[in-house]
Amino acid sequence: MSSKKILDLDTIVLNDEQNEVVIIDQTLLPNELKYLHLKTLNDFWDAIYHLKVRGAPAIGIAAAYGVYLGVKNSLANTYEKFYEEFTKAKEYLASSRPTAVNLFWALDRMEKVVVNNKNKELEGIKKLLKEEADKIKEEDIWVNKSIGEYGLSLLKPGWGILTHCNAGQLATAKYGTALAPIYLGHEKGYNFKVFADETRPLLQGARLTTYELLMAGIDVTLICDNMASIVMKNGWIQAVLVGCDRVAANGDTANKIGTSGVAILAHNYGIPFYVCAPTSTIDMNCKTGNEIPIEERKPEEVTEKWFNKRMAPEGVRVYNPAFDVTDAKFITAIITEYGIAHPPFEESLKKIFEIKQQKQKNKI
Amino acid sequence: MSSKKILDLDTIVLNDEQNEVVIIDQTLLPNELKYLHLKTLNDFWDAIYHLKVRGAPAIGIAAAYGVYLGVKNSLANTYEKFYEEFTKAKEYLASSRPTAVNLFWALDRMEKVVVNNKNKELEGIKKLLKEEADKIKEEDIWVNKSIGEYGLSLLKPGWGILTHCNAGQLATAKYGTALAPIYLGHEKGYNFKVFADETRPLLQGARLTTYELLMAGIDVTLICDNMASIVMKNGWIQAVLVGCDRVAANGDTANKIGTSGVAILAHNYGIPFYVCAPTSTIDMNCKTGNEIPIEERKPEEVTEKWFNKRMAPEGVRVYNPAFDVTDAKFITAIITEYGIAHPPFEESLKKIFEIKQQKQKNKI
Repeated sequence: MSSKKILDLDTIVLNDEQNEVVIIDQTLLPNELKYLHLKTLNDFWDAIYHLKVRGAPAIGIAAAYGVYLGVKNSLANTYEKFYEEFTKAKEYLASSRPTAVNLFWALDRMEKVVVNNKNKELEGIKKLLKEEADKIKEEDIWVNKSIGEYGLSLLKPGWGILTHCNAGQLATAKYGTALAPIYLGHEKGYNFKVFADETRPLLQGARLTTYELLMAGIDVTLICDNMASIVMKNGWIQAVLVGCDRVAANGDTANKIGTSGVAILAHNYGIPFYVCAPTSTIDMNCKTGNEIPIEERKPEEVTEKWFNKRMAPEGVRVYNPAFDVTDAKFITAIITEYGIAHPPFEESLKKIFEIKQQKQKNKI
Repeated sequence: MSSKKILDLDTIVLNDEQNEVVIIDQTLLPNELKYLHLKTLNDFWDAIYHLKVRGAPAIGIAAAYGVYLGVKNSLANTYEKFYEEFTKAKEYLASSRPTAVNLFWALDRMEKVVVNNKNKELEGIKKLLKEEADKIKEEDIWVNKSIGEYGLSLLKPGWGILTHCNAGQLATAKYGTALAPIYLGHEKGYNFKVFADETRPLLQGARLTTYELLMAGIDVTLICDNMASIVMKNGWIQAVLVGCDRVAANGDTANKIGTSGVAILAHNYGIPFYVCAPTSTIDMNCKTGNEIPIEERKPEEVTEKWFNKRMAPEGVRVYNPAFDVTDAKFITAIITEYGIAHPPFEESLKKIFEIKQQKQKNKI
């Protein structure tokens, strides 16, 4: 297992000749590596709804390819008919996971291709749709690779690195966000020693992070969330890398529940704590973490899910927030695809967006 | 369920007329409340070995009653014969859990009763054995109640209290250690709001702490270990209460894995962190926490136990320490049955033992 390369674990691959997209069924990990061949719109809807594909970027890419394949073999002979079919396909896929912002973002990008090219041949529009979906995937890979390179510049060979949840290859097209510096370092022989929090209640760390790192031949040790303090105290951790769901303009960061605790521990032990954040997750209109609402999920995730019997008495009250907000003061740096932001983040994040604007201007 | 009193949940009760001890089968909690009637030495051995009774004090009491019942109906008619039978019973019970210090301590106390009274009638010795076992239980209740009263003096009605693992009634004869202040406060209408960490990997918080608090009608909310930070940040916690396995002379405290992380979080949020420690767990010959060895347990506890399938890939490395050491600097006070020790603990713990010696002298 340990000799396989990360490329064996491609999260989403279009096989255009076969009219299919191949994904890994993440609900079967870590016990079984099964590739699914998504062909119909229903296949895509089902894969997204049942979390067979997960992670904001991966969902967006899957939906983009899904809507492309959904109209690729359309027999429509007018633009109006074609657009109607496209809209139907788009709306169907959008209903698969109504809270996934990236899903709508990707589908909207695809729709713009149709609308902006209404005067072109239908076959030409189909080709542009494929190119747009490819571009969404390629951009994701570029963003992650860039985060990986900036992140790697902060790390040294042989370091112990702790991560929480799964912000890895399995959540993106490639590399992941928090795991990108680890993968790039691995390619350069950095020999990191990674510690993965299991990440209760959904165990993404145990099920997914250890799986993909093992597959890539990276040294990884699984711990329970409450063991982060002792591994830091043992001197085994030189940096913490986490992903994020949303970063406020002041640097406060919402991420998987438990992240704020890890940040406070790292701060206490003098260990740098890095947030890996594509600029798409940085919300400059959100002033501080106080404005970020925290989703509460079902008690059963804590008391029953995964277990072979109930692990808490019937009727016990459960608090099950999906995220928490890490105060900016515990964050050493925020690593984006356009550079590294250091405190004070109000200024440094603004600068990141200026660089982004400049680079995008230069491209055009 | 919420109207039951804690007395309904007696952990260990001798029913001398029936030649039996009644315990709760803790392996069936929280799904079933089943009382076991232990009659034979084999019953006791099995109950201790299979963790049907657990917690250092509870194991000691069960063993004391076990060895008493084991020889109570002995037909021996000489002291030598009786002592031989007693020794056999004692050694058999001692083999049930070879790492439980309290088990040997209790059995040694029982043996001293036999040896010190060798000139008495055998029926008299049997009576003294029962009295010694009762005394071990009563002393445990006194210790816990005293810790409860001292602890309660630090708390205010309506407070939110976080606890980790199970240092409750189910681990002792009554009240528990960390939960004793909560039970005594409940009797006085303090209306605490308790938050129980589930305590991975063995889930003692989810399975046992929430169970016994619910049974006592105390307001309790279950959280995953990694949610302690957010509940503190939410302002819901005014004090943390934990038990301990061993306290060093400088106040460093070994307790269930995860305790040190909770202490650091409490320190960060300005929340007092209290260790409830019977003086029997304070080891003045152990200078600091560095001298306390940390037991590592099987990977399967993290990856498989309780789950309906493996939750981590085959072959993944797992670090599974059973305990961690909380630095004295994060401990607000150590609550013992002879009073409350404040920093610097080197001095205050010494004083606690002086008080203990004085009080024991006065008794004699």
